[in-house]
Amino acid sequence: MDFIGNWTRTHDINKVSQDLDSQQVVLFGWVQDVRDLGGIRFIIMQDRTGTIQITILKKRVDPEVLQKSDLLQKRFSIAVMGTVKKTNMTPRGIEIIPTQIKLLNIAIEQLPIDITGKTPANIETRLDARALDLTAESTIAVFKIQHTALQAIRSFLFEKGYLEVHTPRIIASATEGGAELFGVKYFDQTAYLAQSPQLYKEQLTMSLEKIFEVGPFFRAEESHTRRHLSEFTSVDIEQAFANADDVMALLEQVIHHVCVTVKETCSNELHVLKYKFEVPELPFKRLTYTEVLESLKEHGVDIPWGEDIPTEAFRELGKLYPFFYFVTDWPSKAKTFYIKPRRENPEVCEGFDLMWRYIELVSGGTRIEHKEQLVCRMREKGLNPESFKYHLQAFDWGMPPHAGWAIGLERLTMVLSGRKNIRETTLYPRDRIRLTP
Amino acid sequence: MDFIGNWTRTHDINKVSQDLDSQQVVLFGWVQDVRDLGGIRFIIMQDRTGTIQITILKKRVDPEVLQKSDLLQKRFSIAVMGTVKKTNMTPRGIEIIPTQIKLLNIAIEQLPIDITGKTPANIETRLDARALDLTAESTIAVFKIQHTALQAIRSFLFEKGYLEVHTPRIIASATEGGAELFGVKYFDQTAYLAQSPQLYKEQLTMSLEKIFEVGPFFRAEESHTRRHLSEFTSVDIEQAFANADDVMALLEQVIHHVCVTVKETCSNELHVLKYKFEVPELPFKRLTYTEVLESLKEHGVDIPWGEDIPTEAFRELGKLYPFFYFVTDWPSKAKTFYIKPRRENPEVCEGFDLMWRYIELVSGGTRIEHKEQLVCRMREKGLNPESFKYHLQAFDWGMPPHAGWAIGLERLTMVLSGRKNIRETTLYPRDRIRLTP
Repeated sequence: MDFIGNWTRTHDINKVSQDLDSQQVVLFGWVQDVRDLGGIRFIIMQDRTGTIQITILKKRVDPEVLQKSDLLQKRFSIAVMGTVKKTNMTPRGIEIIPTQIKLLNIAIEQLPIDITGKTPANIETRLDARALDLTAESTIAVFKIQHTALQAIRSFLFEKGYLEVHTPRIIASATEGGAELFGVKYFDQTAYLAQSPQLYKEQLTMSLEKIFEVGPFFRAEESHTRRHLSEFTSVDIEQAFANADDVMALLEQVIHHVCVTVKETCSNELHVLKYKFEVPELPFKRLTYTEVLESLKEHGVDIPWGEDIPTEAFRELGKLYPFFYFVTDWPSKAKTFYIKPRRENPEVCEGFDLMWRYIELVSGGTRIEHKEQLVCRMREKGLNPESFKYHLQAFDWGMPPHAGWAIGLERLTMVLSGRKNIRETTLYPRDRIRLTP
Repeated sequence: MDFIGNWTRTHDINKVSQDLDSQQVVLFGWVQDVRDLGGIRFIIMQDRTGTIQITILKKRVDPEVLQKSDLLQKRFSIAVMGTVKKTNMTPRGIEIIPTQIKLLNIAIEQLPIDITGKTPANIETRLDARALDLTAESTIAVFKIQHTALQAIRSFLFEKGYLEVHTPRIIASATEGGAELFGVKYFDQTAYLAQSPQLYKEQLTMSLEKIFEVGPFFRAEESHTRRHLSEFTSVDIEQAFANADDVMALLEQVIHHVCVTVKETCSNELHVLKYKFEVPELPFKRLTYTEVLESLKEHGVDIPWGEDIPTEAFRELGKLYPFFYFVTDWPSKAKTFYIKPRRENPEVCEGFDLMWRYIELVSGGTRIEHKEQLVCRMREKGLNPESFKYHLQAFDWGMPPHAGWAIGLERLTMVLSGRKNIRETTLYPRDRIRLTP
């Protein structure tokens, strides 16, 4: 095996162009494929940015390079020093004529999936060999889009004066009251993994006022759908002196900015994924829960007022509203305890969802800021205020009116990259039950 | 209680200056203090950006404003509409003459800590009322510095082409082999909370090549020092085709950039904290482990070669090197299994630490990329390769040479904000055993 030694990569593969004709380059990457045509051998070399052809004319090449190239197999890690040459024999109009090859690491001959992408594998086979699956150009594209989207959200919130924070994942009791929690043995106590930063971020509006958090959260629901993960990444904001309308306006600007940024900077990735999307117009459509029920009824789906809207009904709705839309004015009993009921009609609350077709992308709302009302709502929901006492004491210290929302980053990635299965949008999906370290 | 209604905040408090003399403003925030001097009443109003004086001349003010101001106590959340007036009676040279006050929320009379900062509380009392403690100007300053530092790291890495990723927190087995893990009940299995993204980030160098992750990680060590947390935030990078020297060069640039950025953009926060630091010069000093031992021996601390360096010895060393310095060339047996032993002398490895005085700020190194060597090192460390089989299979698929490091964000915040206790640099310290909330 060779060592990198004093070699320095001169270019990422996608940066090698006809402009570099006759110049010497040093490339680092992997063998994606080897094609031997008798007197000539083609090595398709890959890095995270793309592929390039290394052309070996057996009679003309340095014998040491030929000898080294005899060894090469798919996924061998290599470094190539060579000259860029214009050609009309490759799609990119260039090839590399190697003067030296270093073999940095080997791979087994029988790879579990086809890395050239010619024979697509099913998602289970892909996940079994995820580290290898992640080398596929289309898989890399999904995560470049995810990275770009998150960076766009961050810079937008940063510009608007939101502070990024880090709240605990190991907590003493439920946040939402409802969802299943994973138990953790915390020294001699039992604790839980946080399902959201909700209570902490509400408390932080008392001091930092405008905050956001990005990070993993946990729901102990075995996954039966293609839209759920037991470990997911949430982008949470919370803001003092704001209500649902304020944070909905912020949210649609954020989503718009993300769409513009991804469309502009990820055109190659969208091309690889064969996916196109339109940047949505502002403002997004706003439907009340009651309007949604009426709409559904017209299309033969009858949901009693007050009930949650099942996924199948949202699928119907997704056909009627095939883009981003808000659903507002939910029944108070369908939303969690901290969502504020409307003053003029407490049956209805200031909670909202942002939908994309049938996918619930974001949940948010105005929160209750008065302690008595919050305690009352906890009791209505069958929760014991005593187990929230540490949280409730913060309401004695000047809790401001506040509102916020949480975006599921993997779901947003589904929308932006056109993936139908959420497992494709998370590097190592945790919801496959079989744990993979 | 009043409602915000159609009021819109016109300014953050620190943005109100003499330039706005005679103009009307709307401010949102909290009562920090009320001082009644008979015919005149001063309300010190606070938001996340600072404080301002609201001056109420009892005989001249609108009776409704006076009446409202009679109710005000510390930490009541308020909105004030009023006129900016120049004055030489306040430190900032301005005051607000209110025309209307809205009372948005109340607080209890007996606050557990003095929010004016005049009577500092000890850290335990502060943490018991953390949501309130976080309203102190000096506490806010610490987290603004942390936010700024993280943002500086991110934008630096982003510019250099690193992709931000999210790896699992619920894992099947140990990453490092050594440290204590928190157990999680994962449906019908036992799983653990990740102590680092180490194995995943190594695997990702095969595909995404240059990656970073920021997020919570967990160590089940009861905290006995002021530098440890059982839940902490790690900033991790990993890079293909790189060795320790490459990532050390990157690291010192990152730290330098962070120091410059914090110094430039957080001068107010550093002033509040009464803390000054010098931007370090590049390159940072590099000491080998052996040099460190020699240095310590000269100062009467004798450590046998091969042993880890205890905290007390680092305290001595911190006096000799009162700034950032690298410690390189550690004994292989003192570092974890995946750190690469030097080819020319395998007793010594390519692991390094970045120290700031006595604080270990960053750990990193060149990793082993060859499967046989890695398996061999696992066995030497008493680990069972079988329990790493999912990780080891990735080494059959073309693992590139790679290196990386991990910064402890809270420790970096200690260095940048001059805090001596790590609990001050994390919003809700998890290591207090008593879980909150």
